[in-house]
Amino acid sequence: MNEQETDRQLTVDLLIKNALVFDGETSLSAATVAVKGESIVFVGYQTDFEKTSWLVEDKVTEVLDATGLLVTPGLIDCHTHIVHGGDRSHEYALRAAGRSYLEIAASGGGIKSTVRATRQASIDALVRLARPRLDRLLDRGVTAVEIKSGYGLSCDSELKILEAIKRLDSEYRINIVATFLGAHTIPSEYSGQRDDYVKLVIEEMLPAVAAGGLADFCDVFVEKSAFTVEEAEKILHAAQQVGLKPKLHADQLSFGGGAELAGRVSATSADHLEYVSGDGIKSMRDAGTVAVLLPGASLFLGDNENAPARRLIDGGVSVALATDCNPGTCMTENLHLMMTLAMSRLKMSAEEVFRAVTSNAAKAIGLESSCGYLREGRRADIAIFEAKTLADLPYQMGRNLTRQVYVAGQLAIDRAAS
Amino acid sequence: MNEQETDRQLTVDLLIKNALVFDGETSLSAATVAVKGESIVFVGYQTDFEKTSWLVEDKVTEVLDATGLLVTPGLIDCHTHIVHGGDRSHEYALRAAGRSYLEIAASGGGIKSTVRATRQASIDALVRLARPRLDRLLDRGVTAVEIKSGYGLSCDSELKILEAIKRLDSEYRINIVATFLGAHTIPSEYSGQRDDYVKLVIEEMLPAVAAGGLADFCDVFVEKSAFTVEEAEKILHAAQQVGLKPKLHADQLSFGGGAELAGRVSATSADHLEYVSGDGIKSMRDAGTVAVLLPGASLFLGDNENAPARRLIDGGVSVALATDCNPGTCMTENLHLMMTLAMSRLKMSAEEVFRAVTSNAAKAIGLESSCGYLREGRRADIAIFEAKTLADLPYQMGRNLTRQVYVAGQLAIDRAAS
Repeated sequence: MNEQETDRQLTVDLLIKNALVFDGETSLSAATVAVKGESIVFVGYQTDFEKTSWLVEDKVTEVLDATGLLVTPGLIDCHTHIVHGGDRSHEYALRAAGRSYLEIAASGGGIKSTVRATRQASIDALVRLARPRLDRLLDRGVTAVEIKSGYGLSCDSELKILEAIKRLDSEYRINIVATFLGAHTIPSEYSGQRDDYVKLVIEEMLPAVAAGGLADFCDVFVEKSAFTVEEAEKILHAAQQVGLKPKLHADQLSFGGGAELAGRVSATSADHLEYVSGDGIKSMRDAGTVAVLLPGASLFLGDNENAPARRLIDGGVSVALATDCNPGTCMTENLHLMMTLAMSRLKMSAEEVFRAVTSNAAKAIGLESSCGYLREGRRADIAIFEAKTLADLPYQMGRNLTRQVYVAGQLAIDRAAS
Repeated sequence: MNEQETDRQLTVDLLIKNALVFDGETSLSAATVAVKGESIVFVGYQTDFEKTSWLVEDKVTEVLDATGLLVTPGLIDCHTHIVHGGDRSHEYALRAAGRSYLEIAASGGGIKSTVRATRQASIDALVRLARPRLDRLLDRGVTAVEIKSGYGLSCDSELKILEAIKRLDSEYRINIVATFLGAHTIPSEYSGQRDDYVKLVIEEMLPAVAAGGLADFCDVFVEKSAFTVEEAEKILHAAQQVGLKPKLHADQLSFGGGAELAGRVSATSADHLEYVSGDGIKSMRDAGTVAVLLPGASLFLGDNENAPARRLIDGGVSVALATDCNPGTCMTENLHLMMTLAMSRLKMSAEEVFRAVTSNAAKAIGLESSCGYLREGRRADIAIFEAKTLADLPYQMGRNLTRQVYVAGQLAIDRAAS
């Protein structure tokens, strides 16, 4: 190998200089991030970069002066339902006009209408509907997304949703994690026969999901209107036996012991938690279960109840934030708005908010060893924002400050150009 | 005049067909809007359009098929403070981290920091800072904006802000209305001498503002921390004598009799109203005072108190919505998010929400005879959204569904092209 070849191998492709860098844990001012191929090769001060053997070459290296810009790991939306058919804006209008959820459900609305539309849709149709939602996430710097099934509620249609998620994963370079949520609610045709539905989930759906390698996680909605703690525990144990890791929708609309269960089954995350108990918090802390808070859902539903983010953080639980994007209770792909809500309503600090959409969100979907950090050796998933400080992004409520997004070292979004 | 010339005079420039049209009051499905020059010449059904003498000609008329799109009057943001210096993201971070407003104010933060930065800024600087804020409003379909002074609090600096607003008005084709808010708070140098400051507002500022033709409205912040009802009444009477119409910031943080005063002085609008009384509502109704609700401010401050929109509407008061865009309590230009908050938190219907940002917002800033309606003869300020129903826009929380915006018949924003 001659000298020139060595040089070329040591020349970085992208050098981001003079940036405020948030690395997934903490901030560095006037810092440098260097990328070679798909990987981050340096994060730190320019003077330290210059001591490495990495080279910057005129016609090869793209040098980005990030003075006044914020550079973070690609953001992570760790709880979404973006694969679904139908639309519930009509129901939203009815709710604003004072109709109760029961009246809406009685007239064929509510989750049942999404199940109907999702069952009727083909895989192609589901993929086509989900693409613009993923694009909008990416347009705000999101480079890893968890997507749940749960609007099928029959073996075939749950598998269909998971196949659609797999298709999206193969189309997009961003990281997509699939969660099986067959236990989202009891479908109409099983009303009065809930044991049979739980049996269907355990004996037919779970083995099929596992056999197809279609999901990493199994989630259960523990709530009065959905599944009991006992049912959830049975389902999650069965899931663990076929290799799926547990997650829970817990304590959203009322206290239901979901967080305690999350600890007991060592769930990777417990999500919502508006009504979590002190024991639930301890149980989650001891098990290392991440709390995924979804403040958009309370807002969208006009509910004043917020998850106790401070009690969770002070109790030693890692807190993540996500959009909960779904057609019934939170139709949004705007993760930045969740960051504003977390500061304004949950009283999280700016650093806590950024951890909640990077490193802690990675942990909530089992990707902490590959996503959520700017670190030497990691894949170069990088978001660049027009923000002078961390707080600036949540502070500029309802704006999109995203400037560039890199996925595996490739420029995926360039809003500065438009 | 020969036949061809007649034809040309009768040929419309823009024909929007098959649209869901909201005309400022109500909706029409599959409707047509026609524009000639700067003006709307037809709103109604295509079959009725074809009975008029207006012509559509191949190479002259731009025909826009608006199937699946929503066409409305250009939206109106009737309460903003977009002309200001400085930035308070640091204060936002401190508040999220649990510091009280008093601690922040004691360390030089709060409104005083904006006053300091605004006093230091030149007219040029203020205009330069406000332009991107106006651009962001326009990018969401807003074609009329009210802007308040109130961060100067000295005769010179209040006039400077109003001059900056005048400059923006001359640069932009959208409608800009200026409001003098010298009585925003008592500046530091008058602490302990509030009577002297009220005197300064009445005897020096108001005559100078009027002499320069720099504002249409005079606004006063009635609140424990700002001005009393008696002081406000004196200021607003003096304002009326020099030809400025009254507005009020009323009952935001506590009940203070502001709405009652608004009725008494026949204020064009009373704004905020989180703590309005039943008598205040009656007083506003009798005087025809518009209620301008600012749900973004409660959200941004993490406050669960919302203005009683339903009681106001049911009590016969016209309700408008605005961003309140300001650096301390609501840093946003996202009027659509306010529409979501109005449906989710204030329980306004989709039609009420659209009236609140069109016809009622026009009334709140005295522009009801020129803005806020799609009507034959009105200036063609038109917003087109990718929304299938009225509710769809607020429902898609935190997105920008704007497709095209026309100002005086000219295409000002085309997001479909990008």
